[in-house]
Amino acid sequence: MNTRYPAPALLDLPDDIKAKVLEVQEKAGFVPNVFLALARRPAEWRAFFAYHDALMLREESGLSKGEREMIVTTTSAANHCLYCVVAHGAILRIYEKKPLVADQVAVNYRKADISPRQRAMLDFAMKICLQSDALEDADFEALYPHGFNDEDAWDIAAITAFFGLSNRMASFSGMQPNHEFYLMGRVPKQK
Amino acid sequence: MNTRYPAPALLDLPDDIKAKVLEVQEKAGFVPNVFLALARRPAEWRAFFAYHDALMLREESGLSKGEREMIVTTTSAANHCLYCVVAHGAILRIYEKKPLVADQVAVNYRKADISPRQRAMLDFAMKICLQSDALEDADFEALYPHGFNDEDAWDIAAITAFFGLSNRMASFSGMQPNHEFYLMGRVPKQK
Amino acid sequence: MNTRYPAPALLDLPDDIKAKVLEVQEKAGFVPNVFLALARRPAEWRAFFAYHDALMLREESGLSKGEREMIVTTTSAANHCLYCVVAHGAILRIYEKKPLVADQVAVNYRKADISPRQRAMLDFAMKICLQSDALEDADFEALYPHGFNDEDAWDIAAITAFFGLSNRMASFSGMQPNHEFYLMGRVPKQK
Amino acid sequence: MNTRYPAPALLDLPDDIKAKVLEVQEKAGFVPNVFLALARRPAEWRAFFAYHDALMLREESGLSKGEREMIVTTTSAANHCLYCVVAHGAILRIYEKKPLVADQVAVNYRKADISPRQRAMLDFAMKICLQSDALEDADFEALYPHGFNDEDAWDIAAITAFFGLSNRMASFSGMQPNHEFYLMGRVPKQK
Amino acid sequence: MNTRYPAPALLDLPDDIKAKVLEVQEKAGFVPNVFLALARRPAEWRAFFAYHDALMLREESGLSKGEREMIVTTTSAANHCLYCVVAHGAILRIYEKKPLVADQVAVNYRKADISPRQRAMLDFAMKICLQSDALEDADFEALYPHGFNDEDAWDIAAITAFFGLSNRMASFSGMQPNHEFYLMGRVPKQK
Amino acid sequence: MNTRYPAPALLDLPDDIKAKVLEVQEKAGFVPNVFLALARRPAEWRAFFAYHDALMLREESGLSKGEREMIVTTTSAANHCLYCVVAHGAILRIYEKKPLVADQVAVNYRKADISPRQRAMLDFAMKICLQSDALEDADFEALYPHGFNDEDAWDIAAITAFFGLSNRMASFSGMQPNHEFYLMGRVPKQK
Repeated sequence: MNTRYPAPALLDLPDDIKAKVLEVQEKAGFVPNVFLALARRPAEWRAFFAYHDALMLREESGLSKGEREMIVTTTSAANHCLYCVVAHGAILRIYEKKPLVADQVAVNYRKADISPRQRAMLDFAMKICLQSDALEDADFEALYPHGFNDEDAWDIAAITAFFGLSNRMASFSGMQPNHEFYLMGRVPKQK
Repeated sequence: MNTRYPAPALLDLPDDIKAKVLEVQEKAGFVPNVFLALARRPAEWRAFFAYHDALMLREESGLSKGEREMIVTTTSAANHCLYCVVAHGAILRIYEKKPLVADQVAVNYRKADISPRQRAMLDFAMKICLQSDALEDADFEALYPHGFNDEDAWDIAAITAFFGLSNRMASFSGMQPNHEFYLMGRVPKQK
Repeated sequence: MNTRYPAPALLDLPDDIKAKVLEVQEKAGFVPNVFLALARRPAEWRAFFAYHDALMLREESGLSKGEREMIVTTTSAANHCLYCVVAHGAILRIYEKKPLVADQVAVNYRKADISPRQRAMLDFAMKICLQSDALEDADFEALYPHGFNDEDAWDIAAITAFFGLSNRMASFSGMQPNHEFYLMGRVPKQK
Repeated sequence: MNTRYPAPALLDLPDDIKAKVLEVQEKAGFVPNVFLALARRPAEWRAFFAYHDALMLREESGLSKGEREMIVTTTSAANHCLYCVVAHGAILRIYEKKPLVADQVAVNYRKADISPRQRAMLDFAMKICLQSDALEDADFEALYPHGFNDEDAWDIAAITAFFGLSNRMASFSGMQPNHEFYLMGRVPKQK
Repeated sequence: MNTRYPAPALLDLPDDIKAKVLEVQEKAGFVPNVFLALARRPAEWRAFFAYHDALMLREESGLSKGEREMIVTTTSAANHCLYCVVAHGAILRIYEKKPLVADQVAVNYRKADISPRQRAMLDFAMKICLQSDALEDADFEALYPHGFNDEDAWDIAAITAFFGLSNRMASFSGMQPNHEFYLMGRVPKQK
Repeated sequence: MNTRYPAPALLDLPDDIKAKVLEVQEKAGFVPNVFLALARRPAEWRAFFAYHDALMLREESGLSKGEREMIVTTTSAANHCLYCVVAHGAILRIYEKKPLVADQVAVNYRKADISPRQRAMLDFAMKICLQSDALEDADFEALYPHGFNDEDAWDIAAITAFFGLSNRMASFSGMQPNHEFYLMGRVPKQK
């Protein structure tokens, strides 16, 4: 489909990348397109996923994994990135066990059925996403009453900033979400 | 849920409105929230649905019903209207028999898997939605090679304009999409 | 003048539309162009004017007719709609008996010679017009001290939303205001 | 009315300013508020009107006086300056002998009843007004077919730039147009 | 370099302009390009520099000369005017004796190493620069705690408005800053 | 200075990070603040610099190192990131051996003294920076006549996207450029 930047074949990948791709495939049941699309440049691939994992798998974070995916889905919608909204919206539904929440935050997070804490988190994320130069102390102050501290603010900012990169690369390169993502987390998993 | 503008009970509705609501319920299996949310003002309700039907059910239109719902979903996303994106996205999936298309046009219609004709249609609709004052002859000219004529342009413009009204009323009044819409058209209908 | 969407001749109109047009002509002394321009599509015409009347003639509204025209003139200026600014600006001048107010709100309602209540009303209307997705409880709260209640908020929102539709159709179709409107309400009526 | 920056009394003005004010009063029949509002700072007053006259009274300009006022009215509307739209709209009506044109260009110059030459002139002016940093050779090229040369482009740019200054000072200082301006040029002058 | 609007030769200038240019050359060691670039139109030149001097050399101003140049540099950056950012940034560095401050306010004045008073001054200036129609009493109120009065507000507004004119003329005419400006005030003056 | 996110002491850093920091210090003569500011989170630090090096040190790139720094400086200015404009502007001056170019592209790249190839490169970069969702084939087509191919487009996009991340983290965390950067490349290196 993508004739400008065709994804490499799995067989042609460097061993470390191939191993990671196979591991993801094992876990998810399919290979999310981002893993192959970026693999045409191994050094960038390695840095991208190292960054991703440092933020999204960070053990000591004050943000739940669902909250992190909520940031990704919301800010990716602001950047109109099809791949990230669909793929991370799916993961958000699963982590939060809320089949409707991804569509809600993608269209208008102000109308979504989320907690006041999550609303404050997304207000901060959207400021980073759209107007990072205008961030003020008041933006930090608005986080604290909801139990966020400055390390959590860093997590919110860094996740937003990293997926701003990801959004731009996905839109630029014409990355399409796998069909599987569209339905994931919307219906009870079949046994 | 909506404490500012609670929907009236079905029993309290004027007969003509009640009849139409029951008819929709019969056909869809549930009552889409917009039918009750607006019914607290019967005169506006009647005008709203008369306008809706004049555009969306228009027999002689050069636009298919799927194309009309595609305009609604795309421009409603630009207006960040949760109700309309979710509800009309569902109808779009069903009419077009494409379970992925609604999410695609809602996030970024430029990356959606649609025809060049549909792309031109949405470019025109977005100009009406966001910059109607700057519409030029060139915007009309861009429609003609795709088989659209001036009556089709009117349809595109009027649907966009009408749902701009609808988007504002839904966001203003806190209208929430029925849960049923989120999943409609994503999975094969069970028999 | 308008070669793309010529207005139908009065004689060719359906009887109910013709009757209403003649009634308006009787009252105003001329036929405002919108009545003929939209009449090429009778079903849309009927819904449009039913909606218009439901909002603008609503007896139980907490907004005066002058205030309603003030909303129309102000938000139509934000949408750069020539027809609505000129036509409704004329009606605004007459209802408010203030020959200068229409030009003032059209250019910059913040500098207009209006009451604090009217200023709050227009702030709310402009939020609906330009950013309906970002409406918050605080926007409603700003209305209450001026004697507005939630039904009045609905009136403000619905009038703004309806004329957002009207603005887009007028700009799209190249509708021009009748020359009579430009001067109406600027000079004392001659006896 | 303006308590922050009250206009000085005519008697208190320096002689050269007083003389010019009286001359304007003689000619116009009243003193346009800008002449008194800015007179509280004589050095700025002198520079302002010297600049104004250098541009607006320039004998060798390829732009008619009506065209110059059209630029002022259109760009002042884009800057939402009440004083300049109303005052210069009045002068525009008189110079062009077109009682409707000022309202038209103020609301949407793209829909105004003006010549293609005037449309090109206003496109260039609006680029200077809103995006001067993005001006390209192509913007100049669009002027030439209409009989404008580079000196005319300078006139368009300088008039737009000067009234951008004027717009900001008028909005900032709360300058209100004289009531006389609102009606000037709309009705045939009485003898 | 500038083929569209070549600067006149010094010898060809009217005597009063020539005298002023020579005076500046004497003082600065070179002729800033704006002095020659605008001299092709002597009447505009005289008004421009009269205005400039009325604001920038105003003895009784509550703003220091460094603060005035800070306003120029910051708002010129918002207008993306190369000439003014580079030339006035140089003067700012010299007046404030802070070699870093010009780059800071040009990129993001919110992150610059300036006083709270200067920050408030720049917030007001940016409102005039970008949104003068939306100026409210609250914007004035924010100045007073920092020792600014209404005359100082006028200075801030007028300097911003005047350089908005200057920015547009410089960008329009392709004015380039003299090479000398880029380095001025960055390194200790050699004796 | 930065009390919210203080930089760790060199001694406290993990060995691999410490080694890299010392290497940079050796080469540059000082430690650019970004190396310490991000080091409070080693996993993110490693991914950040791995990504940076993959793009900025990429041997086979069709972009010169100066061109890459030009992209960084220009897009960082659009994002109003003080750290990146000042630090990468310095490196740009050095690589290009053009002491004026960094200020030029930071203020308005359209007025900078750069080649048509570089202008096309920056147009593409700015589209990725500000409107990545609207990228079209035409944007790629505009690159080819200047000798860029699709791999070069990827470099432009990826550098822009990566520094969009960097800009947001620097603005968010209050990162300040080292004083050394402000002057680097402006004056001939002393021997």
